[in-house]
Amino acid sequence: MTQRRYAVIGTGAVGGFYGARLAAAGHEVHFLARSDAEVLRREGLRVESVDGDITLPEVSVCTDPADLPAVDVVLVTVKTTANGSLGRLLGPLDAPGRIVVAMQNGLGVDDQAAAAAPAATVLGGLCFVCATRERPGFVRHLDFGAVSLGERTSDGTAAGITDAVGAVGADLEAAGIEVRERPDLLAARWQKLMWNMPYNGLSVVLDAGTDQLQADPSSRALVTRLMREVEAASVAIGHPVGDGFVDQMLEYTDRMTPYAPSMKLDHEAGRPMELAAIYDEPLRVAAAAGAPMHELTALADQLHFLDGDRGQSAAERTVP
Amino acid sequence: MTQRRYAVIGTGAVGGFYGARLAAAGHEVHFLARSDAEVLRREGLRVESVDGDITLPEVSVCTDPADLPAVDVVLVTVKTTANGSLGRLLGPLDAPGRIVVAMQNGLGVDDQAAAAAPAATVLGGLCFVCATRERPGFVRHLDFGAVSLGERTSDGTAAGITDAVGAVGADLEAAGIEVRERPDLLAARWQKLMWNMPYNGLSVVLDAGTDQLQADPSSRALVTRLMREVEAASVAIGHPVGDGFVDQMLEYTDRMTPYAPSMKLDHEAGRPMELAAIYDEPLRVAAAAGAPMHELTALADQLHFLDGDRGQSAAERTVP
Repeated sequence: MTQRRYAVIGTGAVGGFYGARLAAAGHEVHFLARSDAEVLRREGLRVESVDGDITLPEVSVCTDPADLPAVDVVLVTVKTTANGSLGRLLGPLDAPGRIVVAMQNGLGVDDQAAAAAPAATVLGGLCFVCATRERPGFVRHLDFGAVSLGERTSDGTAAGITDAVGAVGADLEAAGIEVRERPDLLAARWQKLMWNMPYNGLSVVLDAGTDQLQADPSSRALVTRLMREVEAASVAIGHPVGDGFVDQMLEYTDRMTPYAPSMKLDHEAGRPMELAAIYDEPLRVAAAAGAPMHELTALADQLHFLDGDRGQSAAERTVP
Repeated sequence: MTQRRYAVIGTGAVGGFYGARLAAAGHEVHFLARSDAEVLRREGLRVESVDGDITLPEVSVCTDPADLPAVDVVLVTVKTTANGSLGRLLGPLDAPGRIVVAMQNGLGVDDQAAAAAPAATVLGGLCFVCATRERPGFVRHLDFGAVSLGERTSDGTAAGITDAVGAVGADLEAAGIEVRERPDLLAARWQKLMWNMPYNGLSVVLDAGTDQLQADPSSRALVTRLMREVEAASVAIGHPVGDGFVDQMLEYTDRMTPYAPSMKLDHEAGRPMELAAIYDEPLRVAAAAGAPMHELTALADQLHFLDGDRGQSAAERTVP
C-alpha cells in the first residue's frame, strides 16, 4: 500500500509539529509557507519535543498552493484569523476524494474549509498540544499532543466514525500521536470550547496563567460559571459535552503545568486574537439556540476592546 | 442663628474638598485624621480648585474620635474599604439629633453608618466630584462637585425631602456646592451605581480611560449592557433609576473630560478597591430581588482576582 501524501498549510507550531511527525513516520509531506519559506528551504525543520526531537534537513516547501503536488490529505493549521484567505489557500487543492482537516480551534472553521474546498471530505481536528514556533523552522513541543478527529456534515449531525477519520487517525497514530476518533465533531468542538472560552480570554484580560486562575477563589468561580454557560449551550444545540465534563475540565486544568494559552501569547506578541472562531461564532450559535452565554459575551467584548484594530471591529462583526 | 458645626471623618479628596469649602464658608469644621494629622496640624489644608483655591492655614485635627468637640453634622468620607472601622470611628459620635452623612459610593454604606451610630439621623451623600488628594494637606479639585443628598430609612422606602436633608443641603449650597435633594436615597444610589459599576471596573480590567471605553464599539456595547443590568435591578427592588437614564449616562460620559475613575487610581496605587460597596452588595441585592446582574458578576469576579489579598477574598465574602 502506498503511504498517503500530506500537504500542510501553515508552518506554525501546529503545522510544524504534526507535519514533522508525519514526515518522520515516512509520509511525503509538503508545506505551504509564507514568510518562513526561505528559512525552511535553506535549513529544514527542527522540532525539539518532550516526545523526542525531530530534524528534517530537507523539506518540500511551496509558497503558492497551485504549486503543491497532488496529495491525499491537506492539514489546515493556520490561525483562524487567516481564514479569510482559505478560499485562496484551499481552493486550488479542492478535489473529490481529497481529505481536508481543519486543525483549528473554535466553531465554524469546518464550514469555512468546506466552502473553500466543496468537493473534498472535511474533517475537524482539535489539537491538544502545547507547542510554540520559536523561530522560522524551529518548533518547541512542551506537552501533550493528542488530536481529536471527527468528520464534518453539512447539517452538523454526528457523522459517526467515518473512513476518512479512520485513515487520517491511523496515520497520526502510526506517527506517534494520540488520536481520539469522535463520532460527533460538534460535541468535540464544544468540549474544546469549554476550555478555550474561559481560559484563553481570562488569561489575556487578567494577565494570568491557568494556575493563577485556578488558585484564586473568585476567578475559579468565574471560570466554573463560564464553563456552565458553554455546557448549557452545547445541550441547547443538541451536541451536549456530557455530564460531569465541567468537573473533569477543572481537574484536568488543576493538574496541568502552569501554562499561558496561545491567545495570551498572540496578544502579547501584538498579533490578532482568534476571537471570531473562539468567541463570536459560539456566542452567535448559542444565542440563536436560546441559550445566550451572558458572562462570556462580556468577556468577548473586553477581548475585542483589547484586540482593537488588530482584528475585526465590532461594527464589522455586525455586518451580515 | 448659630452656624452648624461639622466633623469630617477622613482627609482624602472628598473630606478635604467639602470640609475646606464648609470651613471657608464660616463653619466650624473638625477633621478626624490618621496618617495626615501631623502635616495638617503643622501646615493646614490647601485645595487648588477649578472653582477657586482655598487655603486654611490652621485646621482643627483629632486622631481619636473621642477627642472631637460636639458637632451637629458628621461627614463620613473615608473609603468604604475602611467601613469595618465605622463602629470605632462613629460610635463615640453617636447622639440623638446629630446628623451623620455617609458621603460614600455604593450600597449598604448608609446602613453601616446607622449601625455604628443608631441614635443619629443618617443621610447618604453621593459626590459627583473629580478630585485627588495629591499629598497630605493638599487636594486638587479638577471638575464637578455636586452632591446628591437623601435620608436613609430603616426599610429603604423613600424618606422624602427631610429637615436634615434641607439643613445639610442649605449649608453645602451656601458653601458654593451644587446640591440635589433626593426624596429616594436608594434610587439615587442606584443611579450612581449605573455609572460606577461599568466604568470603575472596566477602567481597571481593561486599563482604559472613560474616553477609550466610550469610543470603542465593543466596550461601548458592553458598558451599555452593564447599565441595562443595573436599570433592571433598580426596577426589581422598587427604586427605579428612571426611563431614559441609560442614554443620559452615556451622553454625560461622552461629554466628560477623559477621566480615570478613582477605582483605577486606587488599584494602580496598590490600594484595595471598593468592591464590597460598589459590586458585592448591589449584586447580592439584585440577585435576591430576582434580577441577577450576570455580566457585572463576571466583572466583579475579575476585579476580586486583581484585588487579590488587598481586599476580602471570595471565600470570606461567602461567609454569611
